[in-house]
Amino acid sequence: MNLILLFEDDFVESGLVEIKGRRLDHVKQVIRTKVGEDLTVGIENGKIGKGKVTRIDDDILRMEVVLDIEPPPPIDITLVLALPRPSVLNRTLIAAASMGVKTFYLINARRVEKSFWLSPKVSQENIREQLILGLEQAKDTVMPKVIFKKGFKPFVEDELPQLIEGNQAILAHPVKGTVPLRGQTGTPVILVVGPEGGLIDYEVEMLKSIGFKPVSAGERILRVETIVPVLLSKLTS
Amino acid sequence: MNLILLFEDDFVESGLVEIKGRRLDHVKQVIRTKVGEDLTVGIENGKIGKGKVTRIDDDILRMEVVLDIEPPPPIDITLVLALPRPSVLNRTLIAAASMGVKTFYLINARRVEKSFWLSPKVSQENIREQLILGLEQAKDTVMPKVIFKKGFKPFVEDELPQLIEGNQAILAHPVKGTVPLRGQTGTPVILVVGPEGGLIDYEVEMLKSIGFKPVSAGERILRVETIVPVLLSKLTS
Repeated sequence: MNLILLFEDDFVESGLVEIKGRRLDHVKQVIRTKVGEDLTVGIENGKIGKGKVTRIDDDILRMEVVLDIEPPPPIDITLVLALPRPSVLNRTLIAAASMGVKTFYLINARRVEKSFWLSPKVSQENIREQLILGLEQAKDTVMPKVIFKKGFKPFVEDELPQLIEGNQAILAHPVKGTVPLRGQTGTPVILVVGPEGGLIDYEVEMLKSIGFKPVSAGERILRVETIVPVLLSKLTS
Repeated sequence: MNLILLFEDDFVESGLVEIKGRRLDHVKQVIRTKVGEDLTVGIENGKIGKGKVTRIDDDILRMEVVLDIEPPPPIDITLVLALPRPSVLNRTLIAAASMGVKTFYLINARRVEKSFWLSPKVSQENIREQLILGLEQAKDTVMPKVIFKKGFKPFVEDELPQLIEGNQAILAHPVKGTVPLRGQTGTPVILVVGPEGGLIDYEVEMLKSIGFKPVSAGERILRVETIVPVLLSKLTS
């Protein structure tokens, strides 16, 4: 936690904040801040700045905050992710949010196990928790949007064609003969990452037919939580 | 598991293998292979190939294996990692092993919490388990070496200077003013990644004094398990 993310509810009056729970525990146990010291803070979807700690109790931390710095710029990559297994989902959301992704689509695909959709982790509440962890890691405040699309075909046929207008449409596809991925700057990107085991041929063909270009990040097949940072990094360098 | 890693002990006779435990469970529950079908297999530190399943019982799978393909080439990057918290250690080892790192140094630093060294995860046995997961992910067989160095100063002063001869010595250091990291090909790399909270100035200066170049992968501070794939990718592209 390199920044404590604040929410409107945390403000007891203008410039005065009280936090408890996980954030308080983290300050006490990890950052070990004392009264009179400053914490790096930021308000959800707003500026970042300093919080001067004026009181720490067992169950509350109070600070006077000044928010005067813009959060870091986002990266202009929309991540379309076949729903991974729940533990991988959490780690991938944290990693991608920390790297600045602001729009996620979680989609179905043939090789997405149906049980994944039933996990309690596939809820806006859990997802928001992971996104907060990612923002806190990267000193960012701008909450990403996560949109569920449980129908692969209607999403690809009816929605993706509009979404990719003006974007580079890139499909991560570790198959021999695909183009190695190289950084390309300027144009926003829509990046599709398939499930463990990959998209099936029919799904790949459908994406290609609407304009997606299959690219490879190398011969080795990597976990979703590993390939996503690699691809985001390559696409922004 | 995109490849089942085999060990000498698994061979009941030449070309005939029996596996049980985690690997058997994975074949039955995830890959769902049947008798007569092929599995992708590889022998530790050797070739990869196919295993034709001839028997599956409750507690044993038998297959006839032919190993005739070289494993993928390693990447020529030595990763020197300040010991991260145990859960992060596991994920970072899996990610880096899947990307082809063959030599790790796990070192101490001021901001490495002493308790991390006492974790059962900091054992050759646990580390080997993670490395196997990484190799199985990437269809690799060549087991990485992991070397512990609990004294930062003696390691940097007495051992690193020899290790970096003929290498690019790169220190990941997310500080404004450092050089952005760009892929450089050909020369092997020794990459140092500090702990959460970073190396202290004294440690950075010591590394610079023996020839390390601080580089930044961007303004955002990323988790160790995220920055490692990003840096490995940038250094090999």
